[in-house]
Amino acid sequence: MAAFDVAKLEVGNDGQSPRRRSVFIGHAGERVVALRVGLLGLGTVGSGTAAILLDPSQRHPLVRELVIARAGVRSLEKQRSISLPAELLTTDLDAIVSDPNVDIVVEVLGGLEPARSLILKAIAHGKHVVTANKAAIARYGDEIFAAARAAGVYVAIEAAVGGGIPTIQPLKHALSVNRIRRVLGIVNGTTNYILTRMATEGADFAEVLADAQRLGYAEADPTADVDGLDAADKIAILAAIAFSDRVKLDDIHCEGIRQIGATDIGYAERLGFAIKLLAIAQREAGNTNDDALQVRVHPTLVPREHPLASINGVNNAIFIEGDPIGEVMLFGPGAGAGPTASAVVADLVSLVALMKTQPQGTDLHGLMSYMRQADCRIVPITELVTRFYARIDCIDRPGVIGYLGTTFGKHDVSLESIVQTDRREGLAEIVVVTHDVREGNFRDALAELASGAIEQIAIPSVLRVL
Amino acid sequence: MAAFDVAKLEVGNDGQSPRRRSVFIGHAGERVVALRVGLLGLGTVGSGTAAILLDPSQRHPLVRELVIARAGVRSLEKQRSISLPAELLTTDLDAIVSDPNVDIVVEVLGGLEPARSLILKAIAHGKHVVTANKAAIARYGDEIFAAARAAGVYVAIEAAVGGGIPTIQPLKHALSVNRIRRVLGIVNGTTNYILTRMATEGADFAEVLADAQRLGYAEADPTADVDGLDAADKIAILAAIAFSDRVKLDDIHCEGIRQIGATDIGYAERLGFAIKLLAIAQREAGNTNDDALQVRVHPTLVPREHPLASINGVNNAIFIEGDPIGEVMLFGPGAGAGPTASAVVADLVSLVALMKTQPQGTDLHGLMSYMRQADCRIVPITELVTRFYARIDCIDRPGVIGYLGTTFGKHDVSLESIVQTDRREGLAEIVVVTHDVREGNFRDALAELASGAIEQIAIPSVLRVL
Repeated sequence: MAAFDVAKLEVGNDGQSPRRRSVFIGHAGERVVALRVGLLGLGTVGSGTAAILLDPSQRHPLVRELVIARAGVRSLEKQRSISLPAELLTTDLDAIVSDPNVDIVVEVLGGLEPARSLILKAIAHGKHVVTANKAAIARYGDEIFAAARAAGVYVAIEAAVGGGIPTIQPLKHALSVNRIRRVLGIVNGTTNYILTRMATEGADFAEVLADAQRLGYAEADPTADVDGLDAADKIAILAAIAFSDRVKLDDIHCEGIRQIGATDIGYAERLGFAIKLLAIAQREAGNTNDDALQVRVHPTLVPREHPLASINGVNNAIFIEGDPIGEVMLFGPGAGAGPTASAVVADLVSLVALMKTQPQGTDLHGLMSYMRQADCRIVPITELVTRFYARIDCIDRPGVIGYLGTTFGKHDVSLESIVQTDRREGLAEIVVVTHDVREGNFRDALAELASGAIEQIAIPSVLRVL
Repeated sequence: MAAFDVAKLEVGNDGQSPRRRSVFIGHAGERVVALRVGLLGLGTVGSGTAAILLDPSQRHPLVRELVIARAGVRSLEKQRSISLPAELLTTDLDAIVSDPNVDIVVEVLGGLEPARSLILKAIAHGKHVVTANKAAIARYGDEIFAAARAAGVYVAIEAAVGGGIPTIQPLKHALSVNRIRRVLGIVNGTTNYILTRMATEGADFAEVLADAQRLGYAEADPTADVDGLDAADKIAILAAIAFSDRVKLDDIHCEGIRQIGATDIGYAERLGFAIKLLAIAQREAGNTNDDALQVRVHPTLVPREHPLASINGVNNAIFIEGDPIGEVMLFGPGAGAGPTASAVVADLVSLVALMKTQPQGTDLHGLMSYMRQADCRIVPITELVTRFYARIDCIDRPGVIGYLGTTFGKHDVSLESIVQTDRREGLAEIVVVTHDVREGNFRDALAELASGAIEQIAIPSVLRVL
């Protein structure tokens, strides 16, 4: 790549660092805008981002037009893998978001506060924001985007979902010319790693989780991952984009993978399924009200021949169904320094490209968001129509299968199969797979079975089937 | 989606059709640009494109800002699935590309001529061009992009590779902040359909091809597909984008799938591989000259655990390896009316978005292309270092495996395995898998074996291993 023949046109008002000039003229008279980046955080993703910006050769040529103006850190003393001039580092994050020599703030702190406040303050100071913070966007996206709209700045969030996989941009632009029917995905690497190892090793959840924690694939407090909360944040964001709708996090039905055992994984495999933690958002089928969506996170039996069934390890995959495109899947590493930094820098490059075409001072909101300004209606989980898998323990006596079948039938639950899978010490283990049924009906049937009115019945496992 | 409150500001100079106004003011004073589209071709993809444009609800809001101004067809009498006002149809394609009431020409004729001439004429008349024509772009891309640069218009080609899968845009933008090491993919649906059926049915090539032709999955003249020429067109385009390089089609080593038999698919499966027609472009490993690329198309043994191994049927998948992102795969339908039209309209929407930010008359080239203006060096296939699979028929006598091993060794070909797979009527069938070797050495060894100096040896099959 021929280097830009950079002639200084205007110098940032600090007049100091040669990396902090603001506008140049490149070769062939092209306008070269150097955007000055303020990094909030120099941890895994922050360092990864800096590493790309400091080493632009063989990359998109606009990477050269991004300069690190400030980097906010917790400690100035810490040894770091990347070397930045000492005067760029500061522990004063507030100073970065209000610095007139910063054009774009990259928020890679994670967590809710001070991330939210810093993002809002950056916006108030007219900075564009690039963030990887799915938790803050899923909760405060409304407030943040409204502030950005008012200030005429961009908030770019490619890194918030699917790590390095181009997800937000394709969904927002290329794929959205389709009428999106459904977005579903494996969006949490930790749980997919755990489920993959459980499946290959026949091991139980607790055992694999402990090992994943030891290896750094799971956090000391694994709640956000294994209870599906991280996946819920991400599907809230994807649903908002795919359906131009506001989705309230509290409305998302969310189940994690703690209750999944080796037993269920084994049965699922025998039945031709892999168990995956799926995040799903879909337009309510057959509903004439456009605003009704299903948004949910739960472990799911995925047919072996479905592309999502073979996504293993820490990888993520986003599967999109639309009209007329059919089915598209975007696959790759869902987390980690390199992949997430790739998404952060992709957003930065998009901003540079915009600055090159956008006359200064133009309201940038026109292209930013077409999101509805009211919450959409989320269909209650009891209204979901889906297939179910359930594992049932009961007294082993003649007629028990008949009793189960009759009880399900009473609640309009049509069974595809009912199989006694094990019997010992007077107990029978029975696995049931239903046809499409209304979840409310299925739950009513299970409640009646579990009430113990007639038989001593336990239902250790209930899973939905894709 | 709230409809735009469209107030006419300026009327196209025909003054007739309400669908042909050119600039509006939308709600909240937003500038609404209606871009007038001239469709060259109303066949499968053209009709699919029109179908999306005529039915914009629940799609990207900018789809509403695209109006069909003209549609060029071969016959005005033909019955069509989509209904357009008769006065928009014409058989005079030249009139469309020079029509002052057309802003963007969509070329979905396919083939080299008149497509190339019409694209160039459209550019000369200051029209932007959206094309699905990989054959024309792979051959005349240079000429076409140079003309576009001179005229200050865009030529958008998302639909040329991978049908509806977002490929060109992610590769050009989001993924290109990475240092791309390799792009490889299944980019021809017909051959993947044939190979998939051969693998599942144990059938031979000719048999499945005939059936695919009967079912409409293969053309009456299947050459472009089964000989890898279509895949070569596509990898030429992907390589040019991934590596900002010009790639000459003639420099691409290209082998098709005619010689693949059920026997090889069976052996590959036993060895843990699927056979796929891969198109591959990669930076020459360990070479300090950035300009050296490998670009090739050939049937390849893909390890079963590689994501490309499980891409079946007419689907396509593009697998991208870069630093620091790692590995990303984009998967979906590689052809067909709906998917290809999705990509065409995605390009149209991008153009509308650009028009909204771009002051009229600005040179649009700045963001269009960073491609080098000279051809890159393509590494000759003899310099390729890869693993090989070969099936060898020879006289069944003691010492023959030793002779083979010795001959390979003489040419620096290190073997991973050499297995006699069959023996009958005095003949032995032997399957050889090598370690990484230089292709030139391997070919020299095969040439010595096939020369018949010592043994009567035939080599019915040679395949590379991923």
